[in-house]
This record gives sequence, structure tokens and C-alpha cells, in this order.
Amino acid sequence: MISVPNTSALPLTFLGPEGTFTEAALLQVPGAVDMERIPSTNAASALAKVRKGEAFAAMLPIENSIEGGVPATLDAISNGLELRILHEVVVPVSFVLVAPAGVTLADITAVGTHPHAWAQTRDWFGEHLPNAAHVPANSTAAAAHSLVAGTDAFQAAVCAPLVAEQTGLNILAAAIEDNIGAVTRFILVGQPGTLPEPTGADKTTLAIPLPEDHPGALMAILEQFASRGVNLSRIESRPTGQFLGHYIFSVDVDGHVRDARVADALRGLHRVSPGMRFLGSYPRADRQEPLIRSYNSDAAFGEAADWVDSLL
Amino acid sequence: MISVPNTSALPLTFLGPEGTFTEAALLQVPGAVDMERIPSTNAASALAKVRKGEAFAAMLPIENSIEGGVPATLDAISNGLELRILHEVVVPVSFVLVAPAGVTLADITAVGTHPHAWAQTRDWFGEHLPNAAHVPANSTAAAAHSLVAGTDAFQAAVCAPLVAEQTGLNILAAAIEDNIGAVTRFILVGQPGTLPEPTGADKTTLAIPLPEDHPGALMAILEQFASRGVNLSRIESRPTGQFLGHYIFSVDVDGHVRDARVADALRGLHRVSPGMRFLGSYPRADRQEPLIRSYNSDAAFGEAADWVDSLL
Amino acid sequence: MISVPNTSALPLTFLGPEGTFTEAALLQVPGAVDMERIPSTNAASALAKVRKGEAFAAMLPIENSIEGGVPATLDAISNGLELRILHEVVVPVSFVLVAPAGVTLADITAVGTHPHAWAQTRDWFGEHLPNAAHVPANSTAAAAHSLVAGTDAFQAAVCAPLVAEQTGLNILAAAIEDNIGAVTRFILVGQPGTLPEPTGADKTTLAIPLPEDHPGALMAILEQFASRGVNLSRIESRPTGQFLGHYIFSVDVDGHVRDARVADALRGLHRVSPGMRFLGSYPRADRQEPLIRSYNSDAAFGEAADWVDSLL
Amino acid sequence: MISVPNTSALPLTFLGPEGTFTEAALLQVPGAVDMERIPSTNAASALAKVRKGEAFAAMLPIENSIEGGVPATLDAISNGLELRILHEVVVPVSFVLVAPAGVTLADITAVGTHPHAWAQTRDWFGEHLPNAAHVPANSTAAAAHSLVAGTDAFQAAVCAPLVAEQTGLNILAAAIEDNIGAVTRFILVGQPGTLPEPTGADKTTLAIPLPEDHPGALMAILEQFASRGVNLSRIESRPTGQFLGHYIFSVDVDGHVRDARVADALRGLHRVSPGMRFLGSYPRADRQEPLIRSYNSDAAFGEAADWVDSLL
Repeated sequence: MISVPNTSALPLTFLGPEGTFTEAALLQVPGAVDMERIPSTNAASALAKVRKGEAFAAMLPIENSIEGGVPATLDAISNGLELRILHEVVVPVSFVLVAPAGVTLADITAVGTHPHAWAQTRDWFGEHLPNAAHVPANSTAAAAHSLVAGTDAFQAAVCAPLVAEQTGLNILAAAIEDNIGAVTRFILVGQPGTLPEPTGADKTTLAIPLPEDHPGALMAILEQFASRGVNLSRIESRPTGQFLGHYIFSVDVDGHVRDARVADALRGLHRVSPGMRFLGSYPRADRQEPLIRSYNSDAAFGEAADWVDSLL
Repeated sequence: MISVPNTSALPLTFLGPEGTFTEAALLQVPGAVDMERIPSTNAASALAKVRKGEAFAAMLPIENSIEGGVPATLDAISNGLELRILHEVVVPVSFVLVAPAGVTLADITAVGTHPHAWAQTRDWFGEHLPNAAHVPANSTAAAAHSLVAGTDAFQAAVCAPLVAEQTGLNILAAAIEDNIGAVTRFILVGQPGTLPEPTGADKTTLAIPLPEDHPGALMAILEQFASRGVNLSRIESRPTGQFLGHYIFSVDVDGHVRDARVADALRGLHRVSPGMRFLGSYPRADRQEPLIRSYNSDAAFGEAADWVDSLL
Repeated sequence: MISVPNTSALPLTFLGPEGTFTEAALLQVPGAVDMERIPSTNAASALAKVRKGEAFAAMLPIENSIEGGVPATLDAISNGLELRILHEVVVPVSFVLVAPAGVTLADITAVGTHPHAWAQTRDWFGEHLPNAAHVPANSTAAAAHSLVAGTDAFQAAVCAPLVAEQTGLNILAAAIEDNIGAVTRFILVGQPGTLPEPTGADKTTLAIPLPEDHPGALMAILEQFASRGVNLSRIESRPTGQFLGHYIFSVDVDGHVRDARVADALRGLHRVSPGMRFLGSYPRADRQEPLIRSYNSDAAFGEAADWVDSLL
Repeated sequence: MISVPNTSALPLTFLGPEGTFTEAALLQVPGAVDMERIPSTNAASALAKVRKGEAFAAMLPIENSIEGGVPATLDAISNGLELRILHEVVVPVSFVLVAPAGVTLADITAVGTHPHAWAQTRDWFGEHLPNAAHVPANSTAAAAHSLVAGTDAFQAAVCAPLVAEQTGLNILAAAIEDNIGAVTRFILVGQPGTLPEPTGADKTTLAIPLPEDHPGALMAILEQFASRGVNLSRIESRPTGQFLGHYIFSVDVDGHVRDARVADALRGLHRVSPGMRFLGSYPRADRQEPLIRSYNSDAAFGEAADWVDSLL
């Protein structure tokens, strides 16, 4: 495992509490199972631990195939001291309905869970427990832990399979999500200094402030990618938090900063948007290799550079 | 007032409960103060009332200068039966800390509010009530109403000034938000059939599915705007909910569909992305008129059409 | 034959004198063989006959696969009263060496011909008559006619096969051109009012002044084509004749002005370069049909227009 | 004088014969007046002398504000052994009517000159000598020299002022050109190895084969310039001589290959069109400095390169 050496004395952190999908994602990182893992209450505090050197890296959700980007994560990695994404993990999103021993479906009048989980299981509840009320919790795991702690605000919780396993609560129903096939993408974020090696199937993440508020600004940015044949696999706008209409674009592109075409596009982007942040180059979870035309290969960039050098 | 005639027998709805910023926005629409106004529990149910003919129009938050786009609203207007945005309102976001009579700052150990409001008042609480716990509520107004109903889960709530006025709770502190100057933009959404007249300072909202997953697809879309001189004032990507990497772009452009350059760009976009939705042309809240070059004026489009007709 | 009805009482004209490749091209136009054909001394005088109503149409060379565009023709059709290209013909360029009866290769010390023909037969003369001098003539046919008239300035001429046939001069050598396979493209130019019907394999010719001297002007023009999927098959810059750096682009595109995508591109171009000239839509000589993506078809344009109409 | 050191033992050559505008241009190059200057009969033979090391450099016309690009020069520098443009000179085009002593206007029935000169003096002859016939000559100077040699084919010649001075023929009329203010641009072409120093007001000339025959090929080339803020001051298409529709673009851009933005654009172009030729960076005749935005400055390129290096 490249990005998380066992030799690090520092723990890993994740968006807690224990049993969240985020911990499930963290456990997929080679070596993570043998390291200390401490939960954080939100993305900002998880990254604060990394920035202060209290944690080696933090696992956070970044994008959900149903809900879209996770604003708290996008914003937390784009501001403050620089960080680097080291690894990505994609986890299927599947929910279970859990309850303490003895509770049956007929006993349930209220269900605790995170609003997102509630939103993604509406169909199942509409059919099986149409009268159950929703009690919002800060996470799916928190709701389950409340049941263990003996809450009387609700009789059951919607959570990830992992938390059922960890708490020993009964599973009353599994795979209750409305959208079969939904996935969430997670990123492991560490300090700068560790740049994962290129694997041929990599991803680079950037935060690019839109330089000026004029019709062509976004096209000028896209042109820097297009002129080097760099493909965008994700683009999301985030407000800068200053004024309506002032955006930072959060972008994933195919390739590694050690690929000549990506490095060259980054040079161009740094000129047109000097506040741009490099948030890491790391292996793609899906191991899919991009199709690179011959004139955008490292060899083509090398020959072009040699040719211009020969003129000077 | 064009978009909300008093003569409509149908009520208006808004993201409730009463006292939210959304109701405050609705009250700014000319005529709304004299109409029946009913709260809805979420964006989907508010729009369902409009789609079923139970409400004339629904007021919903669409974008916050700190948090960015409101995914629930963006998704709810982009899917299902077609709707139209009739009006936009921009409201400053300012929070108050409220409590029942007799409660003082020293009594507060827990504060109820919506997680977004809690996130936007962290600095004030860090300074004044560093040990207060957060109890999540479904809205800022809901937390205030729980106080009125006598909850013992928390002693105070963070909410909008309007809800303090409506409930009669005491204001312990005002303007406690961390970001002075933050605003939220709201839209009033009705059924198709009512197209507000152009005013010279209009906005058009579109939902454009990205046609294919290839490097140039987004540029092909932007090109349709650029070739007619149409400026984008907002662009956000939203997942289609099917696969990671499949997006719908939610876009605001300067101008009205009755402006020739906007109509022509829409024709081009409908070809390259036939699933595109027109979500309305309506007056800008800020009344700012766009700068149109002479060759993109209605007159220029008219002359060009006449010229081509003369050839045929 | 659509464009040249036998019923026209007016003659045809061509870049003379008789026997040029241009006359050969004219004879390929259906119906032309039965009409009166009068030579003109240059492109400007040929087009003057058409503009004054003294000729129905004029045949002129426009492009040579070796020499490139023919500036005199490009400029003559782009300025003055408007004209329309009705037809194009592509003729292989093959030269013969002709001389009066009794003259043999050994007798030749000087050869009359047009400088272009001389340039295109350098290899043959280098090998067979290395010491022959060149006497410039205004056309290949003029040189041959001088021989018939008994000139003593040269003993042989390089000309088109047609002129050998017409004058009865002896052919001493045939196919003496250096570039086997060279072709010249000719256009038949008439008055506006006759627009050839679309055939599915058409070409449209435009003269587009570059609107401003700035980096993006040419891209702005190309963008109007690209955003409608219109392919350029020829692009040439011509000076406006006013200052260095002021250009008119002479352009051929695939398709007919009755094709929706071409008409729409023309509307866009007329806006960004109002001085643009439409020089005709006419069948391609090579009958090659363009590949049109479904979203650039007439049906797609029609649906897009209907859709926008439905919004208004 | 940088580009033509007096110390070169080799002569200069120019498109002759003596007295042409080309020789006039050559005499403007600092130092040229003191060097041996030999005429060449055409562009190809002039450049052959340079390529073989028989001449230090050749002066050739490249562009005329009335006639456009000079195809023979454009093609001769774009093919064969590589050459470099060292210098450019812009010369006003003004014609004189010359004749041997004793000849008056009334005596003139035929006028010898190059067809281009004849074309550019049509108005003057239409007014003053409407019945004079034109006898074509290979150059304006050649016609004048024929008069000196005693030709009886014509009584007067149209030529450059320089040839009148050199031959001693009488000037019957001066400034007889139709277009006052017409200029011709000339280039001095030498062997690779000498790269003129940047002056801040430079020009770079390229010959770029269009990589593929598809709608976007030309835009892909222009994009390489646009993404580095490099302005095109001239663009001309020339046929490759192989098929209709196969082009080489002859391009002048603002700036020197030692300017970072130009070097970077050349790297990009070399990838998309590997057959591209660099034909030199040299001072502009008009000494006009380009407007460079700060993000396209050498400093911006340097910072961007350093920034990417810091990531690796």
C-alpha cells in the first residue's frame, strides 16, 4: 500500500461516528485495518487533525451518485492549509433498518436517521411503514448508537450494514434503498509531500477560482484543458462565499500531474487563474485507463519540447 | 404585479414552517401579503402542490452565497412535470438567538436549529457559548416552534428575525451570523403558461443534460451560448442520479427567451441536448441590465434573418 | 440542366482565348455546347459582361491543386455588383507541346506559353529541351494562336489539348506536365435570382471580411460554423486591398443555403461580419455527400425552432 | 546590423533584374549597400543560392497590400531545406512611366510591364493613354531594360522609380498607381543558425500543414495560439500541391520564439501538426509592440512552470 504506510505512528480519522459508510470506505484502504482509526464529527474537524499533524490522513465522502457533490468536503479541502488527496474509494450505498432485540416492524412509530438516508428510503417506508415519523440525526450511525444507548425518541434506525455489525442491533430489513446501484465516492486526504506514483489510471483534482465574471472565463479555462487533450470527469461549481456569482470550480481530470499533458494544462491554468489549487494526483478507484491520442502522449510533449529547444 | 395576480383563488406555498427565510422572501412578492400562504415540509411537496393545481406557486431557496446551490430545489424543478420560475427574490441572511421569557444566556446548555444555521454561527457560539450543544432541527423555524411548544431538548434556538416576530420569543442576541453580508436567493415557481414579460433586466434558467461523456461536450454547450453572445451568470453541475459522472448542468443566463439571442441559443442547445428544460425567463432581483454588443441585439438578429430570407 | 437553360438568348462567356482549359470546362456544362460562347480577356471583363446583362454567365478558374486559389477570380466575384456561382466543374490539367507543321523538337529555341504552364512543365523541358527559352504569353491559348498567326518569337507553344484540336497545330509531345493528377476547379458565375436546387451534395461559397483585427476574430467566425456543424472545405485569405493585415476570407462550406444548418450559420455570420457576401449554393462537382450528425439535420433544426416557439 | 554582417564574404541575392522593388527593399537593409548583390530570376533560384551556400541571404516579396500573398515565395520557403527569415522590409509601391529620350506620350502605342503593374495602373492609362496596348514582361525592370536594349515591341515601360534611376530612362509620369498607399512587404531569407535577438516588437512566421480534413482541424490549431494569448497578424492557406482541399497555413504571429508564450504555442502546434515549419523570428518592420496581458507574460509562464515543478 503506497499511500498509507503502516510505519506511520499517526492514526487515521474519518467522518464518524463509528459504523458510517465513511469508516467502511476507510477499511478498504490497504493497511488501514491495522492502524488506529478515530472518528471526527465533521469534515472540517477531520481535516484540522491532519493539518495539525494529529492524524496521518482523513477519509471523507466527496460525491454521491444521487445527491451529487458533498459541499462540506469540497469546501474544506479547497480552503485553509494545502492538503493532498492520496486515494479514492467507491462504496455502494445500501441501507438496513435496525432495532434493538424484541422490536418488530409493528412496534415502529418513529425512525431515527440522517435526512439523506431518510430521503433515499422513502419508497420502502411508503410501502412498509407509511405512518412512521422521521427523527433527524447527525449521521446514520449516530441514530443506531442512540438506540443502543436506550433512546425513546424512536424505535428503529436506518444505517449502513457496518454499523449493524458493530452494534449488534437486529436487522429488520436490508437493501431498503430506493435507488439500487447508488454509490458514494470517498477520498483519503493527507498533507502535501506524498505524491502517489502514476499508475496509468489516475485522477487529478483541482480547485479553480473563476478568474473574472465575463462570458468567456469558463471557456478560457476549458480551453486550457482542451488544447492539451485533458478530459474532465467531474466539474462542480462552488460559491466562494463572498458574493453570489463568484465561483470556484472543483474539477477532476483524467491523468496524473506527472503526465506531460496534465502538467502542461496546469501551467496554463496557473496563468489564467493563479489562485488555482492542486489537490492531488492519485489512482482511480475504477482503474479505468484514459484514451490518449498519440499527439497528447508524453512522447509527443517531449518531442515538441526538444524541437522548440533546437530552435533556440 | 404580473406573476401573482390577486385574482388567483389558489394559495401560495413556501418551504415552511412559518417564519423561515423562505416565507420572508415570499412576503416580498407584490400581492403575496394579501393571499393565502401555506407552508410545505420540503421542496418536493411544495412543487407537488403546484403541479396538482393545489397552489398557484411555490417559493423555494435556490442558492446561498455561502453554501452554494440548494440541491433539493435544483433537482425538484429539473425533474417531473414542467414548471416555470416566475420571480426571484434575494434576502439577506441574518440570524437571531431566541428563547422563551425568563431564559438568559447563562441558562443555555443546548441550542436547537438547522445544521446550516448552526454552521453559519460557529464563531458567535465559540465566543459567547462555547459549551452549548447543538440539537439538529429540520428548519430554523421548527426549532423555535419547539420552544414555544415547551421542548426540554434545548433552551434556545437560532432562527430568522421573522420567526421571532411571529412567535413572540425573546431575542437574546441579533446578527449572530459569522458572514456579514450573506444572502440567499429564492425563486417563485408556478405552472407553465405564464411567461413574465421582458423587462430589459431578465434571467433565463435552464437544466441541460450533458449530452455525452467526452472531453468536448461541455465546450459544445458553452459554444452555443458564446456564438450568440449570451452570458452565463450561474452554472452548477448536478448528478443525474444514475451514474457517477452523468451530469445535468443547471444554468442561469442573462436575458429573456423573448430576446432574439437567447431564443437562438436555446434552438442550438435543444439540438445538442434535446433533453434540455426551459425553467423560465423572469426579472432579475438586482435589476442589472446586461451589456449587449450591437451584433447580438434583436435588431442584428432580425436583419440577419431577413438577409438569409432574401437569399432563399 | 438547371442553371443554363437553352432558352436564354444571351451568350456564355469564358476566360479566353478559345481553347483554354476554361473553355474546356464550359463545354462540360450541360447545354453549353449548343449556346453561343464568347471569350473574355480577363476575369473582370467576363464578369462585367454578366453584370451588364451581355452574357448569361461566365466560366472562370477559381482554384488549382498546384497553384492554389486564383486571386483575380476570387477578387472579381467578391467585389462589385452581387453575383452567384451556379455550377462547378473540375478539369484535369494536362499540357501538350504544339508547333506548326514541319517544326521538330530539334528546331525549338523558344517556347511561348503562360508563366503558370511554363512553371508546371519545368521537369519535362529540363530533360528534353534544356536550352529552350520561355516567352511569356497572356494565356496558353494565346501562345498557340500566335504560332498560327506566324510569330517568329518562338517556334512552339505549351497549351491545353483543346487548343491543339481547335487550331490544327501538331502535337509534338502530350502529358508533359510535371504533376500528374493536377486539376483545376472552375465556376460558372451568373446574376442573382437563380438559386440552384439542393441536391444533397452541395457547396456554398462566402466572402467574409474579418470583422476586427484582434486575436479572436477568426475564431469567432469559425465558431459560427462549428456551433451548427458546418464543415469548411476551402478557406483562403485575400487582402482587402486597403492595408496589410485586413483580410476577406473566401470560404467554401459543405451544404446548401436551403439546408437549415447552413442558413443558421449564415444568420450568425451576418451578425458578426455584416459585410459578408453570399456567392451561391450549387452542386459539388465531385457529388460527395457530407456526413451530417442527426442533431444538425433539418429535422433537428425544425424541432428546435418548434420547441422555442412553443415557449413563446 | 544584426542579420547581415559586412564580414560575410557571400553576396546577397534578390528577385531581379536590377531595379525591381525587391532590390529597393534590399537596399534598406543596414549594410546591404556595401555588399555584393546579385539578381535571381525567380524565388526558387534565389533560395537555391542560399541553400547551396552561394548567397548569404535572399530578398523576396511575400505580401502585397493589393494582390495578397506572393504564392511563389510562400511555397519556396515552405518546402525544401529549412530556411529562416532574418528581416522584413515594407516598401511603398509607386510606379513611373519611363521611355527613351525623345519619346513623348503621344508616341506611345504599346507599353511593356509585368501584368501586376499593368493591373495597378489601369485608371491612369484609361485616362491618359486609353488606346495603349499592354505587352507583358517578366518584371517591371525587364521591360525597362528592353527599352534600353532598343526593343521595338513597345515605346514605354511601367516600372519602379529605382529602375529609372539605374537606367537613365526619362520619367514621363510619376506616381501613376491607382491605389495610393499600396505597399509590398519583403523578407530577407537566410540559412538556419542565425536567430535574430528579440526586440520587443517581433514577428514569427510558421508553415502549418492542416493535420486532418475535418471540421475542427483549423480550430484546433487556432486554439493552440488562443490558449497562450498569441495573436495572428497574417494567415493564408496554400495548397499542398497534392489534392484540392489539402492546405498548408502560412501564418505570422506577434512575438519571438524566445517569448515564453510563443515557445509554448509552438510546442502545442508541433504536437497537433508535427510537420509544422518554423520560418523565423525577426523584428517587425513597423516596430509595433504587441499588447501582452500579464498572464501571458514571460514572468507568468515562469511562475507557472515553477509552480508545477514544486508539485513534482
